[in-house]
Amino acid sequence: MQVTNNVKEGDHIIIFLNKRKNWLVKAEQGKSFHTHRGLLNFDSIIGLEYGSSISTSLGERMWILKPTMYDIILKSRRLTQIVYPKDLGTIAAWTGLSPGKIVVESGTGSGALTIFAANLVRPTGHVYSFEIRPEFIKIAEKNIALSGLQDTITLKLTDAKEGLGITGADIALIDVGDPWTLVQPMWNALKGGGIVAAISPTMNQVEKLSNELLDCNFVDTETLEIILRNIEARSGKTRPAMRMIGHTAYLTFARKALKTDKD
Amino acid sequence: MQVTNNVKEGDHIIIFLNKRKNWLVKAEQGKSFHTHRGLLNFDSIIGLEYGSSISTSLGERMWILKPTMYDIILKSRRLTQIVYPKDLGTIAAWTGLSPGKIVVESGTGSGALTIFAANLVRPTGHVYSFEIRPEFIKIAEKNIALSGLQDTITLKLTDAKEGLGITGADIALIDVGDPWTLVQPMWNALKGGGIVAAISPTMNQVEKLSNELLDCNFVDTETLEIILRNIEARSGKTRPAMRMIGHTAYLTFARKALKTDKD
Amino acid sequence: MQVTNNVKEGDHIIIFLNKRKNWLVKAEQGKSFHTHRGLLNFDSIIGLEYGSSISTSLGERMWILKPTMYDIILKSRRLTQIVYPKDLGTIAAWTGLSPGKIVVESGTGSGALTIFAANLVRPTGHVYSFEIRPEFIKIAEKNIALSGLQDTITLKLTDAKEGLGITGADIALIDVGDPWTLVQPMWNALKGGGIVAAISPTMNQVEKLSNELLDCNFVDTETLEIILRNIEARSGKTRPAMRMIGHTAYLTFARKALKTDKD
Amino acid sequence: MQVTNNVKEGDHIIIFLNKRKNWLVKAEQGKSFHTHRGLLNFDSIIGLEYGSSISTSLGERMWILKPTMYDIILKSRRLTQIVYPKDLGTIAAWTGLSPGKIVVESGTGSGALTIFAANLVRPTGHVYSFEIRPEFIKIAEKNIALSGLQDTITLKLTDAKEGLGITGADIALIDVGDPWTLVQPMWNALKGGGIVAAISPTMNQVEKLSNELLDCNFVDTETLEIILRNIEARSGKTRPAMRMIGHTAYLTFARKALKTDKD
Repeated sequence: MQVTNNVKEGDHIIIFLNKRKNWLVKAEQGKSFHTHRGLLNFDSIIGLEYGSSISTSLGERMWILKPTMYDIILKSRRLTQIVYPKDLGTIAAWTGLSPGKIVVESGTGSGALTIFAANLVRPTGHVYSFEIRPEFIKIAEKNIALSGLQDTITLKLTDAKEGLGITGADIALIDVGDPWTLVQPMWNALKGGGIVAAISPTMNQVEKLSNELLDCNFVDTETLEIILRNIEARSGKTRPAMRMIGHTAYLTFARKALKTDKD
Repeated sequence: MQVTNNVKEGDHIIIFLNKRKNWLVKAEQGKSFHTHRGLLNFDSIIGLEYGSSISTSLGERMWILKPTMYDIILKSRRLTQIVYPKDLGTIAAWTGLSPGKIVVESGTGSGALTIFAANLVRPTGHVYSFEIRPEFIKIAEKNIALSGLQDTITLKLTDAKEGLGITGADIALIDVGDPWTLVQPMWNALKGGGIVAAISPTMNQVEKLSNELLDCNFVDTETLEIILRNIEARSGKTRPAMRMIGHTAYLTFARKALKTDKD
Repeated sequence: MQVTNNVKEGDHIIIFLNKRKNWLVKAEQGKSFHTHRGLLNFDSIIGLEYGSSISTSLGERMWILKPTMYDIILKSRRLTQIVYPKDLGTIAAWTGLSPGKIVVESGTGSGALTIFAANLVRPTGHVYSFEIRPEFIKIAEKNIALSGLQDTITLKLTDAKEGLGITGADIALIDVGDPWTLVQPMWNALKGGGIVAAISPTMNQVEKLSNELLDCNFVDTETLEIILRNIEARSGKTRPAMRMIGHTAYLTFARKALKTDKD
Repeated sequence: MQVTNNVKEGDHIIIFLNKRKNWLVKAEQGKSFHTHRGLLNFDSIIGLEYGSSISTSLGERMWILKPTMYDIILKSRRLTQIVYPKDLGTIAAWTGLSPGKIVVESGTGSGALTIFAANLVRPTGHVYSFEIRPEFIKIAEKNIALSGLQDTITLKLTDAKEGLGITGADIALIDVGDPWTLVQPMWNALKGGGIVAAISPTMNQVEKLSNELLDCNFVDTETLEIILRNIEARSGKTRPAMRMIGHTAYLTFARKALKTDKD
């Protein structure tokens, strides 16, 4: 049951020139794509096998690549700071995001973490994502449509602090400015032993959040930061890149403990 | 269809005292578990909801947690340096590991990356993992049994350098001392646009590997390093941890381009 | 006027076997030094040129090296966490520690930063160091004696918060648990444009200190952290070391602005 | 003997608006300085105490600060990548740069490390700096004039690889593209136990250099990298800066061992 690996009309594709110059576009019959290095007609792209190269009208060679979910997230529209792929991957590893998991999230933001999580829990799992700002729900909906993961995601325009109306979730994701306010609602939504992950840019948020996690009967709390360094590998000149992202956010994890008479 | 969240006879469970003291054990009727803080009988654990706490014979409170796949990998037997969770998560995000993907890997090692990948591609995807050292296959088989992912993994005791006998794979994973020797075999195994990820502890490996990737018609090559810092969050004393892992490995990624007359 | 480069009776010398095994000892006639790799008589060391090697009674080759001030600091007695050399060097570069500068410091601790500063400002500069714990003054005195910098350092067993009784200092160094309490006293002690450097292990200290610096008419405030990675350079296997120090302290710098009617 | 702390005609001063907007200029009677925030006349600056503030013609408040040697280095003219202050400070701490030391250096480049070293070894020490490119000597001369350290520095327009014609140096500094070629010449120039420091942007340089150091009878070799992270300290929002320098150079240190019949 080998799925075809050829570009179809309506596919979102990556047109790749190099690391800095590449575009996520929709392949539409009869249309063309203009770059500073020449023009490409989609009619000559549709039907090609992914990985193929093609020459622009100016003779520049470009490659046709299939976007990963990470490409889609990086290229998607956003109103806020995106959750970076380095952080997404760590959240996946630490929380155990995988097929079948039930995930609750607040807030949705532009949907990057929502889409990333949904892509890992599909087809049997689900992501319930809460957002109170209508303009973000709108952006997130567009990005989710691009990802094709509508069936795995439910967006809710309500305030998760008031309660999620969900119980038994495997994983809870927190990405708001006041993460401590969501600790108790997320405890309520998780099943016993369920895992919470929170994204916090500042040390102050981490401190307040960690205290609240301890107070609300979470155990195994851990906060960490992921620093990514790019390496420039060139014969005889291999070295780390001169510029890098200094900081995105701290990641905090904990597991729900059930309450006893002692708590 | 809420799955029960209670400990069953034969489950692998985490007995959690604190970050440093916690154990992955099999819950077996009639047996008990001894710690330096007292004894626990599995008979009083079986049937408990995950997230519950229980007192040892010495009155120490411990928690019963359900292991994530990451817990299982961290606690599994190994003969070599394990691939660290920080690196596993990044590999997942960069390669697009997700349900349905076909993955080829060499070598298997103790199976950490194999299990991690299989947990993300199940149930419709598959991991074909190649290893030439029989003693590693043996350890990996035990770890895979612990993970319960036997159906999603095929181990092969052959040399991937001689060819994998597979085509159309989505993702190729390289974790050997001479990663450049696997570049051409992995190119052959991948479909157009398929993604390779390689794990290399040294700069010398990165340099030789990167050259080979360019020579063998891969594009979009990128090498990076993930540095993890733990943060100690305590009221009024929040700071990074004093000790950290300095280095595990560099991660290199690239995508298969198809060959044309020009290559 | 080439100073002799030979070991003299009473010199403090480094006996060097390797990076991990090396000792700072006093060369005393008629005495010997015992290591797990054999014995060395100082009589056969005194008179040797620095850089010479010598064999122990067990035939192990060791080198006789002259300690830098950094060696002396690293090997000196201490009651508290030492200021690390990576941080010392940065403080020197940022504050402009150099011959002739007048420095005030609080607290002295075991004297590491005191000695480091004195070594850079001698012979015309001076370090006035304040410490309220007599047991620290005692340790610091011993370490300072070892460094030979007694003439450049004045220790004061008084509380710098009550005022230093000094004005016109070029550089102020703060290394106490509540650094914000020293901001105003240090402002008083510094000359216009003078530079303060403070060492703070936690983010909370940095935040409170930075606010106080702004309130007390300092400008050009900057906080930074220095992370040191060791590289293991070996043919074909060059890579960062696997273990590293995760965190020592944050360094905060600022310059004294004079007050006007507007402040 | 309190030196006056007031701006004199001809002084190089820092006009400071904020971290990003500040200028190193020469205070010249009858002249003025134009910024995007208004004009300043030097006549109203000369005579002010350092640390004073002054209003521009547009009413913007700016501060008059005395440059440290580090300010001068950062603002000086250059043709190549500068040695960063974080690396300068570490070189100072590791090599023991301090008053009276004799230093040899190759190459001079734009003179940043030369000036930094000279400022620490003055007035009794000296820096002999070798450079083969006349255009660099010219730039370095201008920067050295700005620093006022002409008497402590001797520039030589010759190739250090051919030999330095100096013996008995305390410290040797290497900052060239092929650092291994200078190891033997620097060994010859150093006294026994003398310390060499080399600056190398790439891992390949580090590897080749380290091998050469071992071959040429240096001991106690160490390579490290200094990573600087800025912290943004703001009430309730303290966090590392979002952007940072990813890499400048590796620093390698070693000490000269004397040769014996065994070597």
